[in-house]
Amino acid sequence: MPDPVDSALVHALHGRRRDRPPVWFMRQAGRSLPEYRALRVGTDMLDACLDPAMAAEITLQPVRRHRVDAAVFFSDIVVPLRLAGVDVAIEPGRGPVFAEPIRTAAQVAQLTSIDPGAVAEAAAPVHDAVAIAVAELAATGTPLVGFAGAPFTLSAYLIEGGPSKEHLRARAMMHADPASWHRLAGWLAEVSAAFLQVQVGAGASAVQLFDSWAGSLSRADYLEFVAPHSRAALAPLRGRVPAIHFGVGTGPILADMRLQDADGVGVEGVGVDWRVPLDEAAAVLGPDTTVQGNIDPAMLQAPWEVLAAHVDDVIALGRSARAHILNLGHGVPPDTDPDVLTRLVAYAHGELG
Amino acid sequence: MPDPVDSALVHALHGRRRDRPPVWFMRQAGRSLPEYRALRVGTDMLDACLDPAMAAEITLQPVRRHRVDAAVFFSDIVVPLRLAGVDVAIEPGRGPVFAEPIRTAAQVAQLTSIDPGAVAEAAAPVHDAVAIAVAELAATGTPLVGFAGAPFTLSAYLIEGGPSKEHLRARAMMHADPASWHRLAGWLAEVSAAFLQVQVGAGASAVQLFDSWAGSLSRADYLEFVAPHSRAALAPLRGRVPAIHFGVGTGPILADMRLQDADGVGVEGVGVDWRVPLDEAAAVLGPDTTVQGNIDPAMLQAPWEVLAAHVDDVIALGRSARAHILNLGHGVPPDTDPDVLTRLVAYAHGELG
Repeated sequence: MPDPVDSALVHALHGRRRDRPPVWFMRQAGRSLPEYRALRVGTDMLDACLDPAMAAEITLQPVRRHRVDAAVFFSDIVVPLRLAGVDVAIEPGRGPVFAEPIRTAAQVAQLTSIDPGAVAEAAAPVHDAVAIAVAELAATGTPLVGFAGAPFTLSAYLIEGGPSKEHLRARAMMHADPASWHRLAGWLAEVSAAFLQVQVGAGASAVQLFDSWAGSLSRADYLEFVAPHSRAALAPLRGRVPAIHFGVGTGPILADMRLQDADGVGVEGVGVDWRVPLDEAAAVLGPDTTVQGNIDPAMLQAPWEVLAAHVDDVIALGRSARAHILNLGHGVPPDTDPDVLTRLVAYAHGELG
Repeated sequence: MPDPVDSALVHALHGRRRDRPPVWFMRQAGRSLPEYRALRVGTDMLDACLDPAMAAEITLQPVRRHRVDAAVFFSDIVVPLRLAGVDVAIEPGRGPVFAEPIRTAAQVAQLTSIDPGAVAEAAAPVHDAVAIAVAELAATGTPLVGFAGAPFTLSAYLIEGGPSKEHLRARAMMHADPASWHRLAGWLAEVSAAFLQVQVGAGASAVQLFDSWAGSLSRADYLEFVAPHSRAALAPLRGRVPAIHFGVGTGPILADMRLQDADGVGVEGVGVDWRVPLDEAAAVLGPDTTVQGNIDPAMLQAPWEVLAAHVDDVIALGRSARAHILNLGHGVPPDTDPDVLTRLVAYAHGELG
C-alpha cells in the first residue's frame, strides 16, 4: 500500500515539488456537503466531534467525494478545552460559547490549574476517530492533517466568552495583566499540543495550527504575546510530522507566522489568505517554507471560466515558492456548491484537459 | 468668534502641525454615552439619523462631555440609501439589513436607475441637523466632520443583504460580473458624494469617508474595483473641504488609501487602524498626507497608566508624519467607560500635567 509519508502533501511540506501541487480545502469536511448535513441531524456539534465513528466518517466524506490529496481531521478548536473539562458549547450560527468567560487573574489561575494532561487522558474518542479515518485512507496513501487552534484564537473566544469582531478583551489582557495573559496562553499551548499529539499518535501525517484571528494583532503584540505560545504548541511535534500554520489577514506578519526559533527553524508550511499573491508571500517567507493557499473563497461563486483562470494564476504564482499546496485562502463557505469543489480538484489534477 | 477653518483639525489636515495633535474619536457619538442611550429610547436608528434636532443633539453630546477637538456628524452609512428610497433598516445588535439584496445584473440595473440626485432632494433633515450642530459649535470654533460610507463597504452590505464577515458576494460580483459591479459602485459613489455635499453645504469643515471593509480585499482588487469609485465619491469635495479616508486592516494597501489621481493628488488625511505603528504609516504615506489614529480600542479597557503610556507612544510616533490627528484605531466600542475618553482628551490636551 502507498505510504502517506510518500504523499504529495508531505513531500511538498518538506520542500519537494512535483509537477502539480497537491490540493485540499480548509473546512472541506462540514456544512457544504449534503451527506454531512444528513449525518449531523440530531447530533450536537461537539458530540459529533467526540463520536469516533461519526467524526471519522465526516473526515472521510470530502476525500471520497472530491478526491482531494489530504483529509483534515473533523473537529473544532474548542474540543481540547471540552476534553479538559471546560463548559463550552457550539451555538449553531454563532460559534463557541463559554459558560464562564475567563477575564480576571483569579479565573485564569483557576482554569490553568487544570492539568493539560487531562486532554490526553480524555482523548480516546479523538484517537479512535483519527485511527478509523487513517485506516480507510491507507488504501490510497492519502495523508490526514491533524487540527488544532492556536493559543491566541482560543483565548479570544475564552476571554470574550464567545465570538467577537476585534477580540478587544483578549488584546486588552495582554497589556492590562501580562502575567495572566502569558499564564493563560501558555496553558492553551499545552492543551493544543496535547490535542495534536493524540492525533499524530493515531496516524496523522501532518498538522495544521489555526490562528484564525492572528491578523487582528499589531506585529509588536504578535511577537511579544502570541508567537512564543504558538511555537510552544507545535514544539512537541517537531521531527515527528511537518506543520502548517495559518491565519487570516496576516499579510503584515507573514514572515513571523513561520514561528522560527532562535536557530531559525520554523514550521514547514505557512497558509496564506486570499489577500496576498503567492509570489509576494514566497518572497517574504523565503526558501525554507512551503506556501499553502490561496484561492479566493469568493471566486467559488464566479462562473467556472473565471474560477479556473484564478486557479491558474494561483498555481503559477505558487511556483515562486519552494513548494506549494493548493488550498483556499480561508475555509470553504457553508453555502458552497460542492460540485464546484469536485471540479476544482479534477482541474488541479489535470483531469479536465 | 473663532472660525473652524482655523481649527487644529483643519490645520492638521492641511499639513500644519501644532504642539499637540487635535483629538476626536470615531463613533464618539453613540452607544458609549448614557445621554445618547437615554435620548434614543423609543426611536429607531435611521429615524434618529433623520430627525434634525435629535441627530444634532447626538452629534454635540460627545463634544460637550469630552471636549474633543472635532464633532463627527451622527449618521449611518446607509442613510443616503434610505434617502434614495432603498428599503433598509438597522437591526439592533446586527446592523444594516436590506429588504432586497442586490445580487443580479437586473437588480443592479433597477437600483442604479434611481437618480442619485434624489439623495440631495430628500436630504433636508441631514442639512438641518448639520446646520443646528454647526451653529452650536460656532461659539468654540469646533469643526464638524462630515460622514459617509465608501462604495465598497456599502456594496458589501447591499449585495449580502446585511453584515457579513468576508464580504464574499460583493467580492465575487467584481469578478463574476464586472460591468454590474462598476455600475453599482459608480452609483454608490454618486450617492455618497451627494450625501457629503449636503453636509458640507450645511457647514461641515471636513469629511471622512469610511471604507471599513477595504482591508478584506487583495491590493489588485482594491486598485481595479474599489479605489476609482472611492475617489469619485470624494471628487466633488476637492478644493472645498479636506478629506480623511479610513478603513480597517488596510496595512497592505495604506498608500493606495491616499486615493491619488493621475496628478498624484489625493486625500489630505488617512486614518490608520491599531495594527500599523504611525511611524511606519507615515513612511508609507509620505510627506503629503496627514495621519489620523491610532490608539488601540482594546487599550481603553487597560489601567490608566497602561493607556496613558500607549497614548504617549502614539503621539510620539505620529511626529513622523507631516501632521497628526489623534484618534482611535477604530470606533469607540459601545461598552467603553466614557470617563476614560474624557480623561484621555484632557491628557492629550496636556491638562493632566
